[in-house]
Amino acid sequence: MNRPYTFINIATTADGKIDTFERKGAAISSIQDKNRVDELRAGADAVLVGGKTLLEENPRLTVKSEALREGRVRRGLPQNPIKVGIVTSADIHPDSDFLNIGPARTVIFTTNRTSMEQVYFLRERGVEVFIHESERVDLLLALDKLYELGARRVMVEGGGTLNFELLKLGLVDELMIYIAPMIFGGEQAPTLAAGLGFTRNDAIALKLENIEAQADGGVLLYYKLQATL
Amino acid sequence: MNRPYTFINIATTADGKIDTFERKGAAISSIQDKNRVDELRAGADAVLVGGKTLLEENPRLTVKSEALREGRVRRGLPQNPIKVGIVTSADIHPDSDFLNIGPARTVIFTTNRTSMEQVYFLRERGVEVFIHESERVDLLLALDKLYELGARRVMVEGGGTLNFELLKLGLVDELMIYIAPMIFGGEQAPTLAAGLGFTRNDAIALKLENIEAQADGGVLLYYKLQATL
Repeated sequence: MNRPYTFINIATTADGKIDTFERKGAAISSIQDKNRVDELRAGADAVLVGGKTLLEENPRLTVKSEALREGRVRRGLPQNPIKVGIVTSADIHPDSDFLNIGPARTVIFTTNRTSMEQVYFLRERGVEVFIHESERVDLLLALDKLYELGARRVMVEGGGTLNFELLKLGLVDELMIYIAPMIFGGEQAPTLAAGLGFTRNDAIALKLENIEAQADGGVLLYYKLQATL
Repeated sequence: MNRPYTFINIATTADGKIDTFERKGAAISSIQDKNRVDELRAGADAVLVGGKTLLEENPRLTVKSEALREGRVRRGLPQNPIKVGIVTSADIHPDSDFLNIGPARTVIFTTNRTSMEQVYFLRERGVEVFIHESERVDLLLALDKLYELGARRVMVEGGGTLNFELLKLGLVDELMIYIAPMIFGGEQAPTLAAGLGFTRNDAIALKLENIEAQADGGVLLYYKLQATL
């Protein structure tokens, strides 16, 4: 199996939350950090999100900066990386930014819990839909397919469940965390790695590569995954 | 009202967890960091924990290093800071380290959900017990009392519920977070600030004061609370 170099980029609060308990997609990044994320996106071949993020947060996943898009075109790339959704049941709204903001090649990995009508609709809209015959999308197969589609550098933009599953399967090479100088609190507020969680013995080891303090009080932590050293 | 300078010190994983989903008190700190925590404790007049931490993790809360204890004595202080438990129902086991490891002045703030038998038992063991006539311990009154007892510098050692309530009430001056290079994951795993959580507008703002990278890959973040600037 081949897979692209895969990195997670995520913004959290100092107490490890990626959203408030309300889960409305609370803003965490500063303007400076938004520009950094846009550059990361412009440097990726594909941008990946999980189902909850895709269906509830209506992400665009396109490169915001015109200069960065032009830079990609000069390098012989499409304006935007491939948008990828990993979603068990792909009930994506026809008016969603995922489907409408572009131009971008758009790929969905899903299961047969998505109705054939919805699959037809998505394909009519130009989306490449891959249906896995399993309870949930097989992430190894999905990354293998993205490699086959030409993606060599994949950026994962959440949420916590997708991050956890990718980490669990050893499919992550790098983790970049922007820590905003704020506290959301909340026992039920989401964090960057959800799922069932690991026991202490199975905890995933990271290797700290770099730290950057930003003028706005944000802190950037760069980790490599030990397994990929 | 007077209150001591109050700081939270806590160890988390890179994904913001202070324990695994199993909540068995998983080790997070490195040896180097344990020494740092011991020094912080030796520099405090009182060390504070919430009920769940007290009842489930059996903390000692004493200074481990003999040299640091001797240093305190040379400064005219008792060997250990005051141990303080904030616990709605103080069903503390007679064999707990909280009651037995010392010597240390020991204080419990509780409510009338603690039986009088237990209060008598604790007082016989030399514990100073303060009973609040409210559903939960009144944290303002508790800190005021600690000031009255001579505490000018209080270290809070968890857990997430106590941290959240103290932050919510504006009773925290400083927050020190040790971030270990590991991932626990887990939607239900505890984080440094639990409780209901804040909405985005009510999020607590922090001021980043310092960052330290440790040789073991740990990162120390020092924050002041904006409100105390």
